[in-house]
Amino acid sequence: MERVESYASFGGRQEVWKHHSATLNCEMKFAVYLPPAAETQACPVLYWLSGLTCTEQNFITKAGAQRYAAEEGVILVAPDTSPRGEDVADAEGYDLGKGAGFYVNATRAPWAAHYQMHDYVVEELPALIEANFPANDARAISGHSMGGHGALVLALRNPGRFRSVSAFSPIVAPTRVPWGEKALSAYLGDDRDTWKSWDATELVRGASERLLLLIDQGEDDQFLEEQLRPELLVSACEEVNHPIDVRRRPGHDHSYYFIATYIGEHIHHHARALHPA
Amino acid sequence: MERVESYASFGGRQEVWKHHSATLNCEMKFAVYLPPAAETQACPVLYWLSGLTCTEQNFITKAGAQRYAAEEGVILVAPDTSPRGEDVADAEGYDLGKGAGFYVNATRAPWAAHYQMHDYVVEELPALIEANFPANDARAISGHSMGGHGALVLALRNPGRFRSVSAFSPIVAPTRVPWGEKALSAYLGDDRDTWKSWDATELVRGASERLLLLIDQGEDDQFLEEQLRPELLVSACEEVNHPIDVRRRPGHDHSYYFIATYIGEHIHHHARALHPA
Repeated sequence: MERVESYASFGGRQEVWKHHSATLNCEMKFAVYLPPAAETQACPVLYWLSGLTCTEQNFITKAGAQRYAAEEGVILVAPDTSPRGEDVADAEGYDLGKGAGFYVNATRAPWAAHYQMHDYVVEELPALIEANFPANDARAISGHSMGGHGALVLALRNPGRFRSVSAFSPIVAPTRVPWGEKALSAYLGDDRDTWKSWDATELVRGASERLLLLIDQGEDDQFLEEQLRPELLVSACEEVNHPIDVRRRPGHDHSYYFIATYIGEHIHHHARALHPA
Repeated sequence: MERVESYASFGGRQEVWKHHSATLNCEMKFAVYLPPAAETQACPVLYWLSGLTCTEQNFITKAGAQRYAAEEGVILVAPDTSPRGEDVADAEGYDLGKGAGFYVNATRAPWAAHYQMHDYVVEELPALIEANFPANDARAISGHSMGGHGALVLALRNPGRFRSVSAFSPIVAPTRVPWGEKALSAYLGDDRDTWKSWDATELVRGASERLLLLIDQGEDDQFLEEQLRPELLVSACEEVNHPIDVRRRPGHDHSYYFIATYIGEHIHHHARALHPA
């Protein structure tokens, strides 16, 4: 494991590391923000999953999250959005292959050899963080768009693993929208039954844990009606009485300006769950 | 004038506009952040000048300044760092030509035809802003690195024009450091006497206005000793009893992570000068 970037930021450190991932079978980068509190004590960790086309850089350069993480004493970890490297399968277009791992475990060739992002984010990365940084095992998860899908699905699939979950502009029903249909058919094959365990609207129906789903959604988001469709998750939650809080934000779009405006509220939400009372 | 980008941000709007600049004789882009207060009243304006290689995008995507501008009721305007376009002279290297206008009025061919960034930032751009946005004529100026030099020089050359000035990691003595010597010899020619009116350490000796020079400087800045040399400005200020406040920040480098950490303090400083008591 090698540190490749390091910056002072709001009294703490913003770092980027690279390491060989056994799960993904390639070299990966991840970003970690260490708040000032991490100098003297183990801190809880908020995992941030980015959207299509992103790397570990987008969130740390554009969201302005470090200020809030410093105030709340929370470590931020932002992985890349797919396996990387010359021998990793890729596809034409921004919405499949590199930069578009969709946080699933692929089962089909050529994807299965590297595209195991669920296991990387849920297992390998937290083990690495908790072994090498001043992190305790209190974990939360959030993300944007494809990464919002990832946050919801990873929390719903792994009860007890995350103390809180939130999402910005998430793809809530990948089995029913074009982005999801393209990715899931490639990574999992044509049997749509296998897709359901990667769809938050399906997973919430069988959720054993009643974690509040905190979602912010811009009302002027260009992808809202075709790709995101938060009303599908709201309906599914209502059917099974699962707690959900969707905050519709007038005038806001799909950009990091939206995330920057509300990331402080999300980090505060997670901090309340992460810090023992 | 045409709006080319618009985003909701902290209750206001982050916009990018393009227009034909008569001063620069080319099409230019600038960014403007309109705080919520600008919906109902004219607000003062903080001009931000970016550093080498930057465009109007760097500050608005990376500094996290919108939150503070929203709180303080200040408009932020960030111009590009040089004239642009296919017929605009350029040079090899990142530190001369496009992206490196140094906020001077060039007097030598081929530069003089377009490189008139001082007049653009001091005259044309404020006139445009005050005519087309809910801005009053209370102005402040700040910037980073080459843009910190620009902020200091433009304030010192134009007494009464700006109510406050600050800089992050500024080039304070361009006549005595490699970046400045390269740029000033190209834009102004070999007569070093002509350079002095573009050097903050020279200008401060004759300053008729006693504006406090507020400067933040990272102590781990890779350019500190060769290119920035804030001690030269401190000495010049001490000689003539000009007010200066240089805040040296341990661990901080030349990056936008440094700016993001302290931009709130700068905006608060400017807001106190800009809002009538």
